[in-house]
Amino acid sequence: MGKWVYGFGGGTAEGGAGMRELLGGKGANLAEMASIGLPVPPGFTITTEVCSHYYTHEQSYPEELRNQVEEAIAEIEKQVGAGFGDQENPLLLSVRSGARVSMPGMMDTVLNLGLNQVTVESLSAQSGNPRFAWDSYRRFVQAYSDVVLGVEHYLFEDLLEDKKRELGVVLDGDLQAEHFCELTAAYRALTKSQLDRAFPEDVHEQLWGAIGAVFSSWQIDRARTYRRLHGIPEDWGTAVTVQAMVFGNLGQSSATGVAFTRNPSTGVREYFGEYLINAQGEDVVAGLRTPLYLTRKARQEAGAAEPAMEETLPEAFTQLTQIFEQLEAHYHDMQDIEFTVQKGKLWMLQTRSGKRAAGAALKIAVDMVGEGLLSEQEAVMQIDPRTLDQLLHPTLDPKAPRDLLTSGLPASPGAASGAIVFDAETAEDWAASKRDVILVRSETSPEDIRGMHAARGILTARGGMTSHAAVVARGMGRACVSGAGELEIDLENRRLVCHGRTFEEGDILTIDGSTGHVMVGPVDTVQPELSVDFETLMSWADRHRTMGVRANAETPLDTRMARDFGAEGIGLCRTEHMFFDADRITAVRQMILADDEAGRRAALDQILPEQRRDFAEIFEIMKGLPVTIRLLDPPLHEFLPRAEKDFEAVAKASGVSVAALRRRAEVLHEFNPMLGHRGCRLGVTYPEIYEMQVRAIFEGALAAEERTGTAVLAEVMIPLVSTVEELSILKGVIETAAEQVFKAAGRRMDYLIGTMIELPRAALRAGDLAKEAQFFSFGTNDLTQTVYGISRDDAAGFMQDYIERRIFPENPFVSIDVEGVGELIKLAVARGRATRGDLKLGLCGEHGGDPASISFCQEVGLDYVSCSAYRIPIARLAAAQAAIREAAKP
Amino acid sequence: MGKWVYGFGGGTAEGGAGMRELLGGKGANLAEMASIGLPVPPGFTITTEVCSHYYTHEQSYPEELRNQVEEAIAEIEKQVGAGFGDQENPLLLSVRSGARVSMPGMMDTVLNLGLNQVTVESLSAQSGNPRFAWDSYRRFVQAYSDVVLGVEHYLFEDLLEDKKRELGVVLDGDLQAEHFCELTAAYRALTKSQLDRAFPEDVHEQLWGAIGAVFSSWQIDRARTYRRLHGIPEDWGTAVTVQAMVFGNLGQSSATGVAFTRNPSTGVREYFGEYLINAQGEDVVAGLRTPLYLTRKARQEAGAAEPAMEETLPEAFTQLTQIFEQLEAHYHDMQDIEFTVQKGKLWMLQTRSGKRAAGAALKIAVDMVGEGLLSEQEAVMQIDPRTLDQLLHPTLDPKAPRDLLTSGLPASPGAASGAIVFDAETAEDWAASKRDVILVRSETSPEDIRGMHAARGILTARGGMTSHAAVVARGMGRACVSGAGELEIDLENRRLVCHGRTFEEGDILTIDGSTGHVMVGPVDTVQPELSVDFETLMSWADRHRTMGVRANAETPLDTRMARDFGAEGIGLCRTEHMFFDADRITAVRQMILADDEAGRRAALDQILPEQRRDFAEIFEIMKGLPVTIRLLDPPLHEFLPRAEKDFEAVAKASGVSVAALRRRAEVLHEFNPMLGHRGCRLGVTYPEIYEMQVRAIFEGALAAEERTGTAVLAEVMIPLVSTVEELSILKGVIETAAEQVFKAAGRRMDYLIGTMIELPRAALRAGDLAKEAQFFSFGTNDLTQTVYGISRDDAAGFMQDYIERRIFPENPFVSIDVEGVGELIKLAVARGRATRGDLKLGLCGEHGGDPASISFCQEVGLDYVSCSAYRIPIARLAAAQAAIREAAKP
Repeated sequence: MGKWVYGFGGGTAEGGAGMRELLGGKGANLAEMASIGLPVPPGFTITTEVCSHYYTHEQSYPEELRNQVEEAIAEIEKQVGAGFGDQENPLLLSVRSGARVSMPGMMDTVLNLGLNQVTVESLSAQSGNPRFAWDSYRRFVQAYSDVVLGVEHYLFEDLLEDKKRELGVVLDGDLQAEHFCELTAAYRALTKSQLDRAFPEDVHEQLWGAIGAVFSSWQIDRARTYRRLHGIPEDWGTAVTVQAMVFGNLGQSSATGVAFTRNPSTGVREYFGEYLINAQGEDVVAGLRTPLYLTRKARQEAGAAEPAMEETLPEAFTQLTQIFEQLEAHYHDMQDIEFTVQKGKLWMLQTRSGKRAAGAALKIAVDMVGEGLLSEQEAVMQIDPRTLDQLLHPTLDPKAPRDLLTSGLPASPGAASGAIVFDAETAEDWAASKRDVILVRSETSPEDIRGMHAARGILTARGGMTSHAAVVARGMGRACVSGAGELEIDLENRRLVCHGRTFEEGDILTIDGSTGHVMVGPVDTVQPELSVDFETLMSWADRHRTMGVRANAETPLDTRMARDFGAEGIGLCRTEHMFFDADRITAVRQMILADDEAGRRAALDQILPEQRRDFAEIFEIMKGLPVTIRLLDPPLHEFLPRAEKDFEAVAKASGVSVAALRRRAEVLHEFNPMLGHRGCRLGVTYPEIYEMQVRAIFEGALAAEERTGTAVLAEVMIPLVSTVEELSILKGVIETAAEQVFKAAGRRMDYLIGTMIELPRAALRAGDLAKEAQFFSFGTNDLTQTVYGISRDDAAGFMQDYIERRIFPENPFVSIDVEGVGELIKLAVARGRATRGDLKLGLCGEHGGDPASISFCQEVGLDYVSCSAYRIPIARLAAAQAAIREAAKP
Repeated sequence: MGKWVYGFGGGTAEGGAGMRELLGGKGANLAEMASIGLPVPPGFTITTEVCSHYYTHEQSYPEELRNQVEEAIAEIEKQVGAGFGDQENPLLLSVRSGARVSMPGMMDTVLNLGLNQVTVESLSAQSGNPRFAWDSYRRFVQAYSDVVLGVEHYLFEDLLEDKKRELGVVLDGDLQAEHFCELTAAYRALTKSQLDRAFPEDVHEQLWGAIGAVFSSWQIDRARTYRRLHGIPEDWGTAVTVQAMVFGNLGQSSATGVAFTRNPSTGVREYFGEYLINAQGEDVVAGLRTPLYLTRKARQEAGAAEPAMEETLPEAFTQLTQIFEQLEAHYHDMQDIEFTVQKGKLWMLQTRSGKRAAGAALKIAVDMVGEGLLSEQEAVMQIDPRTLDQLLHPTLDPKAPRDLLTSGLPASPGAASGAIVFDAETAEDWAASKRDVILVRSETSPEDIRGMHAARGILTARGGMTSHAAVVARGMGRACVSGAGELEIDLENRRLVCHGRTFEEGDILTIDGSTGHVMVGPVDTVQPELSVDFETLMSWADRHRTMGVRANAETPLDTRMARDFGAEGIGLCRTEHMFFDADRITAVRQMILADDEAGRRAALDQILPEQRRDFAEIFEIMKGLPVTIRLLDPPLHEFLPRAEKDFEAVAKASGVSVAALRRRAEVLHEFNPMLGHRGCRLGVTYPEIYEMQVRAIFEGALAAEERTGTAVLAEVMIPLVSTVEELSILKGVIETAAEQVFKAAGRRMDYLIGTMIELPRAALRAGDLAKEAQFFSFGTNDLTQTVYGISRDDAAGFMQDYIERRIFPENPFVSIDVEGVGELIKLAVARGRATRGDLKLGLCGEHGGDPASISFCQEVGLDYVSCSAYRIPIARLAAAQAAIREAAKP
């Protein structure tokens, strides 16, 4: 026989906080509070398993349920000393839903269940307060009719308004007991006419109706949508918690309130909350009466006159603060609680882990370690790494007014205001004259890199969370909103149209890359300041993590920032962005458009000194730390000139006609550049390009060693490999070029040669590749693209829909697809290490900054992750959490 | 101690035909002939292992080699009764290279080795023919200097010409012994002056020089290129066969010849060959003297006067024909042999499997079964499936003169002449007025489909063997040459320029899709005629194969042809090509460019009747056989209008402005359409498209059933699936639409729903997918693209280079990459079948017509392969061979 019902109250409970899956969050915590002796109104919880049974058995209950519920009610009756449906001394109940996580859209609460034409009189007599009794009854009939029986809410509101108009009063407070009595009769008549049957007098019928309504609400549209959006499985189900009513509205010695055990905005250790005398819980949140402060101190600081709870109900207050301490000591976390004082007696109605601002979370965690409440590991586990973003980027001033224009994807966090410009060049020009600009593009391409650098933020009409704009912006730490599809960019007239509003180039817009909002005009922003708590927590994270954290960085600026944020090396230095510098792009284009090797070499000779300088500087900044440099990767046509004047510049520089250049550019055009002549395929076809890059790396490295006196740890990485033959050929090219440099310098250095694993075939053939590669770096962006056959630049058309409909549990470009991409990674790790035991393994895709993906990396045993500079602290924390979780495994 | 040398001759041999890997083809067959008692001049073979040793040990030989060679020479000396380098009775040798497969570019042969200033006199005395002796010596010095010592061939020719001019004669035959003696002296002087050392007098030095030259020639450029082009591994190496000389030029009772045991052009069982009295082997091929017929019958049929060998050397001829029979009985195959008659005695110099025309091969195989020489299985195994192409497509008349312009890739077999046109529309127009046209494009796109249909052949300047043009042309059975990179297409002036020659639209070109040749002007073609032998062999193939063979076909024409060629159903009916028909493209475009579902549905309503007719017709033709229909797959933007007039047509039809349409088209543009919003992603986003297609399928199927009285076996296939959720959603769409059709018709039918496996993730998650899918069809084109991260349309830039450099052992779009793509297929088969034991498994990529890939399909246990109609016979034969090979496995 199944156990479907768990009772609690009177100092004991059948369940506890650990049974959230079975009892829901609310039920589990009520049981926990009861079991540690806190004053909790007695009650019981019907488990989530009943919900599953309900849906798998044509909306029916397990056989034993009815008996178990009856027994549990008998237990409540015993503890309270009242009878459910008893004419003299009626027991009233609350019925609440309770999923594992709180879920808007579900049926929430029915209070005062057990009232009917008979018991209302008893309540009236017992409380000596007919108005209270009839108001309670009225509220119950309305709530029950609405949420359980499905009668529209507004119909009752209309009756109430009619009543007040009839009486010539404005406030509910002006209504008397008889008015509520009449209203209740009218409500019951309304429900009867709507449903063609009477409002249930039978209290058991009321109870089972409410229980059924909770289970049914699991499948209403809003709840389903919420689950889809938040990745909550359908089969979790909800529990139902039934509890004896307590009343905060039985006069001046009754009250109700909500509180946090610490300040959730600042993290300061102070009692924080609100209460109302003579009120029910819903009054606190309804906003009709202004709640009062809990403590005298808070009241005084706010300059408020109305007395604090500490002053009005000192005994209950003292007991409450003792419970605060007890709860924190018990849960090892800051708590968010609800309580009611009924005629002087304190009852606890709910406790849960309190939501808090990112900065407050850090302070609380660090403080609790100091107070001995938490270990370092527990403190590290308590911070959601994703919230650190708020601390690292400028954010919109929450108090500033805003005029929301449209929304896109929150592609790169931070907020920025500026004049809109429609091309990269204008962005650079205006930025040079000290104007803040927002670069607005349909989508960005590598040609826009300098303009993106110059801009404060990037706004695109197309592309997803992992589009070019998004990836590059995150790398640079620029705010970015991508895929704002409602924007119509009219490049010809240099204007932007959205919802009938037109913005000319130079008009100010504000973007919030953390929410995806686009606002008209400037909005004040707040600059972040890193606290001591941040540093402390990060030091603990570093102490407990086992994976390294490196940065994806390629400019001296990014490299320096990465080191400041705690990067332990560079995991991905892309060399292609360096090619876009204004002073070298023409030479790069000459190289691409050259007809033969000689022409390419002439152009490469011009680029060499610049690349050498880039690398030397990066090596110097990363002094003592490893730097992985990826040889040229993207399709050459990305570098092709588009504007006529660019063609002319190249034509002039290389002495070729513009027409010839255009023909060559046409030949280089590709249908699917992502799958084209790029990566190591370029190195195989044009080894002179890689030769130049390798020379620049080692000449730069030797120069950096000379200046710093420290050995450079260079790792040369070959992209887009699919066969070991590619690797062998290019390893030869690299080694030959390196030897030439060493010979010329009369000095040598150690270095590694490795490969990206970013194609399914590379993962499958990892055993072969490891024969030549000393390290693997998983390029999960491209690997995800090829495993799914989805171009991240083109996914915007369906990605959102796919995630909302749970076709993809998550955007696979944001969080690693463990089932598909993950299997290939695991397989590559196993095959690679089988060939070469000391193979170094890292990950350098966008996923390197995603906590779930970092956790996966820990599980499969990678040596490090690499992510953009701004995500380094997130990665450090997430890696620590992954290591702690792993260590805790049996 | 290693055995490096294998002797043969005198009725025995140390090796045999099975030792081709060790002895090379030539050496192995000489040993085999010796061992079955045929008259073979004694000799020995130095193994291919010596070649490997040579290259892995700095071009040195194994220690024991010299002794083993000396012993082997002693054995020859014993058998012949002459001494190598002996002044009185010199043994002369031939030295030949012999790889496992014959390989042009390698050093071929040095004859008469062992001649020097002394032995030439002995040979002269012994033969009583000073002219023969000195001519032999002269030839030896020339050949040895050329191929062993590296003196340019033409220098010797110059000396010979000088001598003839000096003597006032024209033919070599007019030179006398003393002239050859003088020439030999001049040759030796030339070699000495070129090399600064004397031509070797020492016969052992001569021998080792020749052996070294054979091994060195393994690595010369031409040999390496040949190996790259033909997929011959570097490490196979070559053997060296050294053999006693026999002479066909010792007078009127001596002769030399080549012969086939059957007619290699027709396959008729008749002795077929040529011979020359008093000649050496090279004279037969040199073409200075016209070789004579072997048999009287052949001579008479040709009306030739010169007597046949049957007439001049009747005894040798009789012995030779007995050997023919003996060889065929022994090898169970038609043989290509070389022989020499020295003073009446017949010597066999070579035998090998004879090359033959495709038609001849069929006749020989079928005849040999009749003769009891072969079993059906052996006959099936003897035909190279790829050669059937020649029988199925028109071919160029081999006798017709041709003016070769350039070459591209042999993308779709068959030959075609026609007027060149530069766009699909002109192709249609001209074809409508009965002109044969060749459609010339930089590359083709789906918009060109109708033009391609109208054209006799397609010629593209870009794209590989699996480009759009190639794939579609093969499907249609049109000749196609793709990637002819030397063509410059000047669309503006509507002309083609190549090698300085200009061709206007309307000029005639001829293409040969079997060779990739492009010729100026018309070239006569020959139409194929399928023989009874073809049908017989195919019936045997069908009897012995276990896999089904289906067709990729989507037009009634293709479908009919597929059925004629023996297709057992349709494995892939692409529905997108149907959308390009002139009379529906506007409606299709309306659908794509519609802003909302209502707009799309309106357009779809127009398309429905047309699609229904398509399907009904295909079902009728395929009566009783299964038809797999793939729902719409390619990115919608492929259907977008490009020309202004097309935009106008759509604008008019849908009542929207051209500007609005252009904006919508812009939105639909994708960077990487191959990885974009296509396949089932379209079905998820716009279910109404799939609904319409499903309605058309089932309405068409019910209509076809009514007309034919036979149940339709419809299989609905969902493309580009990566998660089981996509499959569940679309299965729902299909089932709902099907039920509606059945309900309206008052009648139902069985059908299957399945999925393409064409993404790595689909292969990895095959276990999940099989929960919903009743069949899998491996789409190996897309699977190869994603596993490698290579777009087949963009691979032309490096693919050829990659194959030549053996980075890819084969073009993975032509023959399945067993190591990468293959592993995923194996895994998907295992996981899919683990979930659903009766899962039907097929393959419908381009690989379905490739014999090696078909063999792989057999190994992994697929139920069928599907290929374009013209490749059906190839697939049937290849499948039979795969089954026979598999059955033969222990």
